[in-house]
Amino acid sequence: MNEFELIGRYFKRPTPSAVLGVGDDAAIVRPTPGHELHLSADMLVEGRHFFANVSPRALGHKTLAVNLSDMAAMGARPRWALLSIALPRADEAWVAEFAAGFFALADAHGVELIGGDTTGGPLTLSVTIMGETPAGQALRRDGAKPGDDIWVSGELGLGALAVRHRLGWLNVNDMELLAAATHKLEYPEPRLALGAALLPLAHAAADVSDGLMADLGHILAASGVAGEVWADALPSHPALEARREECLACLAAGGDDYELVFTAPQARRAAIEAVAGVCRVTRIGRVQEGRGARLLDAAGRTVELDKKGYDHFG
Amino acid sequence: MNEFELIGRYFKRPTPSAVLGVGDDAAIVRPTPGHELHLSADMLVEGRHFFANVSPRALGHKTLAVNLSDMAAMGARPRWALLSIALPRADEAWVAEFAAGFFALADAHGVELIGGDTTGGPLTLSVTIMGETPAGQALRRDGAKPGDDIWVSGELGLGALAVRHRLGWLNVNDMELLAAATHKLEYPEPRLALGAALLPLAHAAADVSDGLMADLGHILAASGVAGEVWADALPSHPALEARREECLACLAAGGDDYELVFTAPQARRAAIEAVAGVCRVTRIGRVQEGRGARLLDAAGRTVELDKKGYDHFG
Repeated sequence: MNEFELIGRYFKRPTPSAVLGVGDDAAIVRPTPGHELHLSADMLVEGRHFFANVSPRALGHKTLAVNLSDMAAMGARPRWALLSIALPRADEAWVAEFAAGFFALADAHGVELIGGDTTGGPLTLSVTIMGETPAGQALRRDGAKPGDDIWVSGELGLGALAVRHRLGWLNVNDMELLAAATHKLEYPEPRLALGAALLPLAHAAADVSDGLMADLGHILAASGVAGEVWADALPSHPALEARREECLACLAAGGDDYELVFTAPQARRAAIEAVAGVCRVTRIGRVQEGRGARLLDAAGRTVELDKKGYDHFG
Repeated sequence: MNEFELIGRYFKRPTPSAVLGVGDDAAIVRPTPGHELHLSADMLVEGRHFFANVSPRALGHKTLAVNLSDMAAMGARPRWALLSIALPRADEAWVAEFAAGFFALADAHGVELIGGDTTGGPLTLSVTIMGETPAGQALRRDGAKPGDDIWVSGELGLGALAVRHRLGWLNVNDMELLAAATHKLEYPEPRLALGAALLPLAHAAADVSDGLMADLGHILAASGVAGEVWADALPSHPALEARREECLACLAAGGDDYELVFTAPQARRAAIEAVAGVCRVTRIGRVQEGRGARLLDAAGRTVELDKKGYDHFG
């Protein structure tokens, strides 16, 4: 089989939600009346976004997961995806595993693959994801208001810890922690249920892909406000929480978290804590008048982060 | 400037047709009520789809053009695009020229760039294009019927001639022909006005990117019919028409044409010839009962093409 036959075999599946799926010059869908359409694209390049020896099943999962994370951050229901792949060779076992990882996640969230492209070339994955929200209800970045609480979902720092371990920047001796970190790096779970639950509650949201302080910074800048984050409040794996100072750069600026950071009025604290049944949420700071994002220690002093300053761990 | 600042500077433009453009986790658009949404993706890789020394302006044009050509083949009005780029280095002059080529074509057709992604990596361009037709009116591949005429737009073979010249497979001595061929390869014009005009006229359509007989073959297979194409009727540049037998592989199977091949009932011949004001259209064959696509010479004999059999030219 050549690469085109491989793709046809593993990626052409029924698309009942589309008017026309894979196989014409374009796919055709009927957007839901009264809804807005959300569109986002992420491209993953070998050696930049994943290690060359990553399991293809994990890569299939992650390729879709990072795109679904963008839909979660908008509060959107994901519906359709297009996948373009450049493949260095036609390796059937690799493609089968990649497809298995991709579709397991797609099926779990009702997403249909309706198109894309395949070519030879250095391994590159490019996905466009489409989702919907009722008109006017999206979780944008520009809605944060002074006085809002700042919240984050799940646990921070694990993906970054796994990357640093793989790069040899540090050594994780705790095998249980390393397994948890590797799983978080390879199989991030997009927070779609949380995003949907936050639609009527949050003022602004973003997903944490580049690091908490950077992504929160995008919200604050878009909203024209400032914010403070309490370093002691950042949620993480128990094995990391006990060593918070050693791994603060991972927690606050590591990236590869695929959690949601969001702001909401204080009056909605109880309602937001109630969504903890969907996934853990932690209040980590507050929005203020002004500009910029500051990370504060327990004494209220600003913490300066060195992204590579993670040398004391291990 | 790093690659992200470069992209922000050259690719972030106003998007009045979108609810939300570049800069959030996703773009938001409001599809037109009563319409269907068409989605298509094409990925271009250096050394596969373009020569390493192509002008970045031409590459910007072509990256969008091949995607718009898919919209033309559906009869769709293109509206929004997402562009993901992997760039080997942050070269401002290159990015500025690429953007100039991309937006000149986008502006000519009312297309807005609403999102995408940027990363380092081997030069790769990945576009998702979105367009609309009134519900139920798309030009699909599966509508051809026995008795239909087969038509093609514009001129065939020039793009393939330019590629073969660049690869050294043949030598084009006619400088005027070479200039026309190079222009066709680098600046293909998507047949959007023709596609729109064909919406009420054609039964089926596809764009000619892989070669006329291959792309017509997709229409015939999807429609469950056969077709014959008359080699003598294939339209091309005057300098090639006089040497039809020498360059038949380029004309019928060369690829890189970005013309439209379509089928329509004989009763609509006059109406279709009337769209020649939009662009040249030529009747080149007919749809029959059966399976498969055959290329016939003037004596009605089947012509077997060797894709690389273009040795007699020049």
